[in-house]
Amino acid sequence: MKIGVLGTGVVGRTIAGKLRELGHDVLVGSRSAGEDAVPFADAAAHGELVFNCTNGNASLEALNAAGAENFAGKVLVDVSNAIDASRGRPFVIGVALDDSLGEQIQRAFPEARVVKALNTVNADVMVNPASVPGEHDLFVCGNDADAKARVVELLQGFGWPPERIVDLGDIIAARGQELYLALWLSLMSAVGGAALNIHVAR
Amino acid sequence: MKIGVLGTGVVGRTIAGKLRELGHDVLVGSRSAGEDAVPFADAAAHGELVFNCTNGNASLEALNAAGAENFAGKVLVDVSNAIDASRGRPFVIGVALDDSLGEQIQRAFPEARVVKALNTVNADVMVNPASVPGEHDLFVCGNDADAKARVVELLQGFGWPPERIVDLGDIIAARGQELYLALWLSLMSAVGGAALNIHVAR
Repeated sequence: MKIGVLGTGVVGRTIAGKLRELGHDVLVGSRSAGEDAVPFADAAAHGELVFNCTNGNASLEALNAAGAENFAGKVLVDVSNAIDASRGRPFVIGVALDDSLGEQIQRAFPEARVVKALNTVNADVMVNPASVPGEHDLFVCGNDADAKARVVELLQGFGWPPERIVDLGDIIAARGQELYLALWLSLMSAVGGAALNIHVAR
Repeated sequence: MKIGVLGTGVVGRTIAGKLRELGHDVLVGSRSAGEDAVPFADAAAHGELVFNCTNGNASLEALNAAGAENFAGKVLVDVSNAIDASRGRPFVIGVALDDSLGEQIQRAFPEARVVKALNTVNADVMVNPASVPGEHDLFVCGNDADAKARVVELLQGFGWPPERIVDLGDIIAARGQELYLALWLSLMSAVGGAALNIHVAR
């Protein structure tokens, strides 16, 4: 599949690398195109499906630079987190108690089919779930069932069995997926590393 | 042990019932003392250890009514959550992105030894962890190591083995424990009930 990956940080590079390994035709987009990256708009236009792996604090700006017309009708997988590290630890997580980046992006790009996914684990774990022992789960949410089904299919290629992916419903559930990062940061300190994830016991 | 339980909602009644079953000498406190409850101040004065099971939106008011002198030097187990249901679903969780009820209570009662615990699970699960199958974890945080150790000991009586209790560090980690409720609410919808909890895979 033709896929655009926006963002050249660890998350963008990790996801783009895995997608290429799986045989997808990937273009990576960045603000300042360079050797390994094209402008945001070119990467978004290339993709039948687009991953937002930009820094959450600048995601809306990056997506605007990519151009709404390049997301129309497409699945937009939002992997971003808003993390304010400017005041030191603990980092402040999220955009608001009653909003989320996922919702902001869906509102700003109403024709995109936004699916929040992968933001609850470290980049290594995203594409190599077996690096964390035992059963553990990933979450997806979004307003479009077909878009979520396509993302779940892609995530299977990353190593996530469908039964380990929990559909949380509409994009409004991105609040929980994003605010969870505050707990994740504490867990990372407690565990002593980012090779962790949670399993929903029920 | 002499224990005060503040709050006569489901959480307060469930915890008080379990503590009595375990042989503790429990007084339950409420705003309007009645048949089963004494005033907040009497319950707090009675306890060598006090549980705050009041509604998070009114916890500081309730604790102030109980009187700071009745918490001085004592372990104060804060089970509360701030849940604003006034605007319908999804309920808005938490007091701020950069603060928590646990921290607010510790700041307001500097001589209390606040331990945030139990707020991440339903009342039934709090006192009957085996009602959720498989391994799943509870979190504690607080500034006083001895206070946390005493709470972990009490929680063992509730059925939580020590290896299933994760110490997240200082009371500032209450942010993660409280904001997690946004994810918990989505999980409750996805799972179709509150008999759930998370396990930290690492």
